[in-house]
Amino acid sequence: MAEPKENPLMEKIVSLCKRRGFIFQSSEIYGGINGFWDYGPLGAELKRNVKELWWNTMTRQRDDVVGLEATIIMHPHIWKASGHVDTFADMMRECPLTKKRVRADQVEEQSGTAISFVGCVSKQTLDSILVVLQPTEQDDAGRNALVKWATHIVTTESMPLEQQKALAEKIMSETKGDVKKAANVVLQMHVTQMLRDNSCREPFAVLLAAGKPPESARKIAAEFYGARGINEPILLGEQAAKVENSPDFHPESRVRLGDPRPFNLMYKTQNGPVESDENVVYLRPETAQAIFAQFKNVLDSSRVKVPFGIAQIGKAFRNEVTPRNFTFRSREFEQMELEFFIKPDEAVEAISGSVTSASQLATLDPQPNWGWEAWHKYWVEERIKFYEGIGLPRTTLVEYWQKPEELAHYARATVDILFKFPFSKRDAQGELMGEELEGIAARSDFDLSQHERFSGKPMGVFDEELRAAWGKLDDAKKAELAKRYHDARLKYFIKTGVEQAKAEKDAKEDADGLAKGQYIPHVIEPSAGVDRLILALICNAYYEDQMPDEKGKMETRVVMKFHPRVAPIKVAVLPLLKNKPDLVKKALMVRDLLRPHMNVFYDDGGAIGRRYRRQDEIGTPFCVTVDFDTLGEKPELLDTVTLRYRDDGKQDRVKISDLLPRLLEKIR
Amino acid sequence: MAEPKENPLMEKIVSLCKRRGFIFQSSEIYGGINGFWDYGPLGAELKRNVKELWWNTMTRQRDDVVGLEATIIMHPHIWKASGHVDTFADMMRECPLTKKRVRADQVEEQSGTAISFVGCVSKQTLDSILVVLQPTEQDDAGRNALVKWATHIVTTESMPLEQQKALAEKIMSETKGDVKKAANVVLQMHVTQMLRDNSCREPFAVLLAAGKPPESARKIAAEFYGARGINEPILLGEQAAKVENSPDFHPESRVRLGDPRPFNLMYKTQNGPVESDENVVYLRPETAQAIFAQFKNVLDSSRVKVPFGIAQIGKAFRNEVTPRNFTFRSREFEQMELEFFIKPDEAVEAISGSVTSASQLATLDPQPNWGWEAWHKYWVEERIKFYEGIGLPRTTLVEYWQKPEELAHYARATVDILFKFPFSKRDAQGELMGEELEGIAARSDFDLSQHERFSGKPMGVFDEELRAAWGKLDDAKKAELAKRYHDARLKYFIKTGVEQAKAEKDAKEDADGLAKGQYIPHVIEPSAGVDRLILALICNAYYEDQMPDEKGKMETRVVMKFHPRVAPIKVAVLPLLKNKPDLVKKALMVRDLLRPHMNVFYDDGGAIGRRYRRQDEIGTPFCVTVDFDTLGEKPELLDTVTLRYRDDGKQDRVKISDLLPRLLEKIR
Repeated sequence: MAEPKENPLMEKIVSLCKRRGFIFQSSEIYGGINGFWDYGPLGAELKRNVKELWWNTMTRQRDDVVGLEATIIMHPHIWKASGHVDTFADMMRECPLTKKRVRADQVEEQSGTAISFVGCVSKQTLDSILVVLQPTEQDDAGRNALVKWATHIVTTESMPLEQQKALAEKIMSETKGDVKKAANVVLQMHVTQMLRDNSCREPFAVLLAAGKPPESARKIAAEFYGARGINEPILLGEQAAKVENSPDFHPESRVRLGDPRPFNLMYKTQNGPVESDENVVYLRPETAQAIFAQFKNVLDSSRVKVPFGIAQIGKAFRNEVTPRNFTFRSREFEQMELEFFIKPDEAVEAISGSVTSASQLATLDPQPNWGWEAWHKYWVEERIKFYEGIGLPRTTLVEYWQKPEELAHYARATVDILFKFPFSKRDAQGELMGEELEGIAARSDFDLSQHERFSGKPMGVFDEELRAAWGKLDDAKKAELAKRYHDARLKYFIKTGVEQAKAEKDAKEDADGLAKGQYIPHVIEPSAGVDRLILALICNAYYEDQMPDEKGKMETRVVMKFHPRVAPIKVAVLPLLKNKPDLVKKALMVRDLLRPHMNVFYDDGGAIGRRYRRQDEIGTPFCVTVDFDTLGEKPELLDTVTLRYRDDGKQDRVKISDLLPRLLEKIR
Repeated sequence: MAEPKENPLMEKIVSLCKRRGFIFQSSEIYGGINGFWDYGPLGAELKRNVKELWWNTMTRQRDDVVGLEATIIMHPHIWKASGHVDTFADMMRECPLTKKRVRADQVEEQSGTAISFVGCVSKQTLDSILVVLQPTEQDDAGRNALVKWATHIVTTESMPLEQQKALAEKIMSETKGDVKKAANVVLQMHVTQMLRDNSCREPFAVLLAAGKPPESARKIAAEFYGARGINEPILLGEQAAKVENSPDFHPESRVRLGDPRPFNLMYKTQNGPVESDENVVYLRPETAQAIFAQFKNVLDSSRVKVPFGIAQIGKAFRNEVTPRNFTFRSREFEQMELEFFIKPDEAVEAISGSVTSASQLATLDPQPNWGWEAWHKYWVEERIKFYEGIGLPRTTLVEYWQKPEELAHYARATVDILFKFPFSKRDAQGELMGEELEGIAARSDFDLSQHERFSGKPMGVFDEELRAAWGKLDDAKKAELAKRYHDARLKYFIKTGVEQAKAEKDAKEDADGLAKGQYIPHVIEPSAGVDRLILALICNAYYEDQMPDEKGKMETRVVMKFHPRVAPIKVAVLPLLKNKPDLVKKALMVRDLLRPHMNVFYDDGGAIGRRYRRQDEIGTPFCVTVDFDTLGEKPELLDTVTLRYRDDGKQDRVKISDLLPRLLEKIR
């Protein structure tokens, strides 16, 4: 809420992103679409590099993690099991006129005079009733009586059919023989029904704008009821009342808000050629659930054993109420998620005799006696190392351990890795507090257990090592471990609403299973947002410094100091002059030498100094210049080029034949 | 339609894909979701490799193509401009009972007795009217009269309010003073209104199942009207009629279908916290449009000049009525699209003096005098070369030139590149005809022109070379080129519904612009489907052959002969025995040597022959075995390993130090 409205550094960064083709507003020529951003040529390369590095680090460079690429639209029951259908929602209040919604906890308070109505009735109806009732007496008295009647009708419940029937029978038997009386009764019923059918019973209120007459409120009310199908509404039950600091009116429309209702953040759509509630599907709000849903397929088709992980990169969608901070909180975004499945601590203890606690960790090389604490700590460290490896120093990051009251009921621990963005809030000491790049959660066996319950398909694994070890335990140990496992399972069942007797039966079965080598794996989940990481890399890379121009005069330079590993373009190859065929030919040769191994930018346009600046501004770490010495003007420099470094502008003379290994070493 | 129901080869392939972790059904544990497929660990790697190769070939290895990564959800006007909102639809007919839809041109014909109804009225209404009218005479005669009245009411139009009013006035003035008569009139109006309010006027018909009585049809009709809010419906106007070979009934429900209506294949969702028609957005049905929408941003931010291209890889969604052929026609799929922007032929001719026609092409190196024909031919060849380069021989492909009548009105030419899938239909000679992998379309300047018109933002470029060249043309040439350009623009405007006078004015302005170096670029679009390419690679790789087992006995082997460039795993590193620490240590060293450069699988479990077979079945082109000779048992073989080739099972002895360059050469 308390965001600074302007942030000069962010404005510069946003502007550079557009100017240089990192990030554009989606659909800009059509006025844009809030919460959606496109990556331009350089942004697309930067993002590819980051995703490729994550994928390599997390899967290809490891024996214990495999990849997955699941669809964005999945079976809707997945989101029942995960809890998203029921609880992935913000409480919102809606303006019944404009349909605009506000977060229920974020309504700006308002004061003034509220004009309210209990409902309305259609003028046409009143007119036609007047025609029927009193063709000669369409005077105000008749009309006023009718309005009063209508007000009574819209503020009282309609009579159930059974009661109407009984009443009609009673009246008919009472008026039997008196046709006039009976006709009057029927007439009255008819008019009542007509009023009921052509009225709106929805109350409406609006705060008068300062100095405006009640007539302005009536206009707005008429618009409101008009949208409900009542043309020329006669407003009923008008009242005026003072309100002070009320959170009940929409800040823009000043119309009284509806009651708070949960607004699910998942995008919904219809799948298949049948439109029905059954065919509602969702755009995934996270990639993780697909990993759980395919856990057994992966286990059965790959040569993996617990502990092992499944990694996935992909798009996710959240219909955020207020997308903000450039690409940081977008509605369409990409995630890089790992679910790393581990043995429950009871299994580790049965096999290894004890479980290493996080504080006892002597090494960060995975060990058989690691329980969830050690694995969680391990992944926190691995992930921070990853960020350091792509150019985010530890000083720009914050390792935030969620407090017990912040944790979900199934989570054992969660660490958020924050990056200090220019738009982050500051703490009491004036330090940037940071925004979440990644969360690393120890989620117990909650997710697989949920899918087991909702799909009816077993999600457990059989662990031969555990079965063998269990047989060698003494009875006291067996009983202790079985009890701990039993109690944890029981807690899960009860917390998720399983009925007590069934929960006890299932927990006992699960504990019996443990003794036979069976369990549902626990999971550590490092879950990172690609787009926010890209934004962090861009913010972190942005520098303005002073550098001499070609005449030696100092000038301000904008430079993007991307780590060479992620830089969109690794090297620019520049012939000193464009109109010297020999220079151009040699430069093209150098380009073709490097291009199979890295992203090369060939540029022959403009003064060399200006070409350097252009590369600085897009973050190219190296420039290679082919000049007359390259062609042998100074014979000892034949086939050498100038290698210029972005960060300090220094230059080396390098043999063309040394170029590739020298650059490869820097960018890998 | 005429698909073979069973295809033993496809069944084997589908089964292998699941068993080995290439492709799983999405959300399988929840019964799956039709038209959605997940890529397992090996499939994900295969797909990444293919996308990476496409991206490298199309962008990083070229100076004239840059990348883009746009969002899936974009401003909905983009799909107005592209024509998708209005025309991306199949004509469908809906069963009004089950809501199931069928393609209007694909309804199976049916015969039998159709029982039809004109509508219904609620039994409760009849009952309560009978109570009011005739509390003592609820006999069949009264009821039948009422049903007849109701039938009349549901089959006639309701009277507009103005007429009702006039009629009421007339009757009232005629019956003035006669209260009984007036009351009867009012009563009749009331009953009419009640019948109208509590009836359904929708006709309904259903084909009787063979041997079933009309009562069964009445039950279905009651269900239909019940779903429309009429409980205990009294069916009206029942008729029976014979029908022969009628396409008007749903094949499953046998209910008469609604009229054909266009069913848009785009997935719709609501964006933002306001639910309204204005906030309807679509999941993109193709990636191409984002490229056109961001054309100017890319042009302005990148150092590119026409001719140049913008490439994009990303997900797209089509709510296909009948997804089929494994992953070939999916509802969620991925595309790799290039829009390559070129000068209009008139500009090429002004600059180069003439335009090379496709038949005159002497070289496939781009030339300044290439017009759209040459560029189109060039991209067809480039794309076929790409497929050859990843292991699809030209003999498995078909180059299909669309016939003039198959082309969209704006397309100059389209070539489809087909792959001969096992499920493809066969021609008269028994040859597989192939299914589309990619379309390469010459789309004129249609797309950018549409976005210019719909967004009001200029989409043209300024071409200094053209401006300079134009000044040197003689007047006859200027007039000829301007006229050709004018006529093409005029044709576009007229075809897209621009009013004649405005079209002529705009075409003239555009022709004047050409003389000043301005034009809207034309485009060549090579558009490929990732998933169908993956399926082609899998089908093409699948072989069964005979190979001796460890005892020399021939046995059938399943082998996936992926090109090493795309193979999910490049090399398996296998210590001969798992329980010899020295072997394992050496093997891990070899693994760590190769791993930074390629995807390595380390496997120490089981007999070596079985490990080879496992790698054959997942398409790993190379296996490296570390044995006792590696450790120096035969001193001359110290630090050598066995390199085994997947396709023929042959083996070489290779120095560990030679391994990396040898493998790199094969996989690049």
